Amino acid sequence: MNILITAGGTSEKIDNVRSITNHSTGRLGKIIAETFLAQGHHVTYVTTAQAVRPAEQEKLTIVPIETTKDLQEALLEQFDQTAFDSVIHSMAVSDFTTETTLSEEEFIEQLSAKLVELEQPTKQQLKEFLHQGLAEIGETVQDQKKIPSKTDRLLLFLKKNPKIIAMLREKQPQAIVVGFKLLVGVSEEELIQVGQTILEKNHCDFILANDLETIQGDQHKGILIDATGQTQTAQTKAEIARLIVENVENKWRNKK
Amino acid sequence: MNILITAGGTSEKIDNVRSITNHSTGRLGKIIAETFLAQGHHVTYVTTAQAVRPAEQEKLTIVPIETTKDLQEALLEQFDQTAFDSVIHSMAVSDFTTETTLSEEEFIEQLSAKLVELEQPTKQQLKEFLHQGLAEIGETVQDQKKIPSKTDRLLLFLKKNPKIIAMLREKQPQAIVVGFKLLVGVSEEELIQVGQTILEKNHCDFILANDLETIQGDQHKGILIDATGQTQTAQTKAEIARLIVENVENKWRNKK
Repeated sequence: MNILITAGGTSEKIDNVRSITNHSTGRLGKIIAETFLAQGHHVTYVTTAQAVRPAEQEKLTIVPIETTKDLQEALLEQFDQTAFDSVIHSMAVSDFTTETTLSEEEFIEQLSAKLVELEQPTKQQLKEFLHQGLAEIGETVQDQKKIPSKTDRLLLFLKKNPKIIAMLREKQPQAIVVGFKLLVGVSEEELIQVGQTILEKNHCDFILANDLETIQGDQHKGILIDATGQTQTAQTKAEIARLIVENVENKWRNKK
Repeated sequence: MNILITAGGTSEKIDNVRSITNHSTGRLGKIIAETFLAQGHHVTYVTTAQAVRPAEQEKLTIVPIETTKDLQEALLEQFDQTAFDSVIHSMAVSDFTTETTLSEEEFIEQLSAKLVELEQPTKQQLKEFLHQGLAEIGETVQDQKKIPSKTDRLLLFLKKNPKIIAMLREKQPQAIVVGFKLLVGVSEEELIQVGQTILEKNHCDFILANDLETIQGDQHKGILIDATGQTQTAQTKAEIARLIVENVENKWRNKK
């Protein structure tokens, strides 16, 4: 099979020396790639500089990226060239990217200049006005080499990134798509329910749902949910990798 | 001599899966430590998990930290125990830490609830009111395991961290203090001038001033400024390390 795996965590630049980083060691993605490679499959591995990666080998192609925008572009390029048999999207993707950074003083100056024009607004008018004002301030393009440090409070505007998982099915209708969902401190019931919702919304074949609080080194509880709602549970990264590889291989054989 | 070196870059948590990270490979700090160790000095090396570090050896003590607050606590503990001969503060320290994160909708709801009570405010009144309102919103303590993702725009409030460089002289009056200043894309004149200002303000013995745009792998232009305003220039990380070690050793000998 021809497999595409995303792994690691994206980062979004605030300025030339600071970023917002999604923590992900990439260790789970590495084991999944190694397990597919050991079965003789080809792996295209999209990952970030900070993450660990499988050792170089003939059937492995590494595609390095940094931001969510990079990831989107890299995937579109890969999908243009190849119809993958499966896409395993384990990367921790930033939901938001940096839009602008203002000192409290700048923000207040800009907002008060707008607000002072309003005469006796109702709360609803104020809300609409603030919504518009924030968009205008956020969209102010700034060339920020290094954010200001002479203020007691900074306001960082973040705007929504495109949802990568949402485009996988559309761009690769033939692929067996495995999405990932990480939650923090929820019940197993909620984890499965959220996983199923994401599976249906994004037309995935499987979702691997996991909770940060049940991950500790190689101990890593993961619940693989399929489109019929059936679940299989793994307790380590190696078990998660085996579960994913077996289920993708089975589904692929049954498709033929 | 007994040397304390800080190196690497701090990060500040946004939630359990995201941080604001100051990029710093720690490679310059590592070479400085190695150069002091090669001269037979003892080195206490305060650094972060992501940064490279010198190989373990007898005269080296590693102190790991993550946030600026950790750094402050670790330094105060070290300074309580030891009167260092020199403190080399090369770590990239976050000027700001995360205070709170709000969706645009939450922010607007909170701010408009406050603003609607004002009757025909002047711009000055609005500014004072906004200043107070932002502080109240910022100081709202939130237990954010994972920041909200169902919004188009997020507002991240950041508040000023304590300035670590400002406490070095006070806590270690006997030490030869070397501070670092990184700027981005400025003239050499400005770099030296900013470096001198920081040296004087923080009562350092030396400042190593450098510009991100003249750092490329081991090529690393650094200007060492002393308290008389004299400057010495290095072109690589190894040269910067040699310059610092020689100048600290000379100053230490002359003090005796």
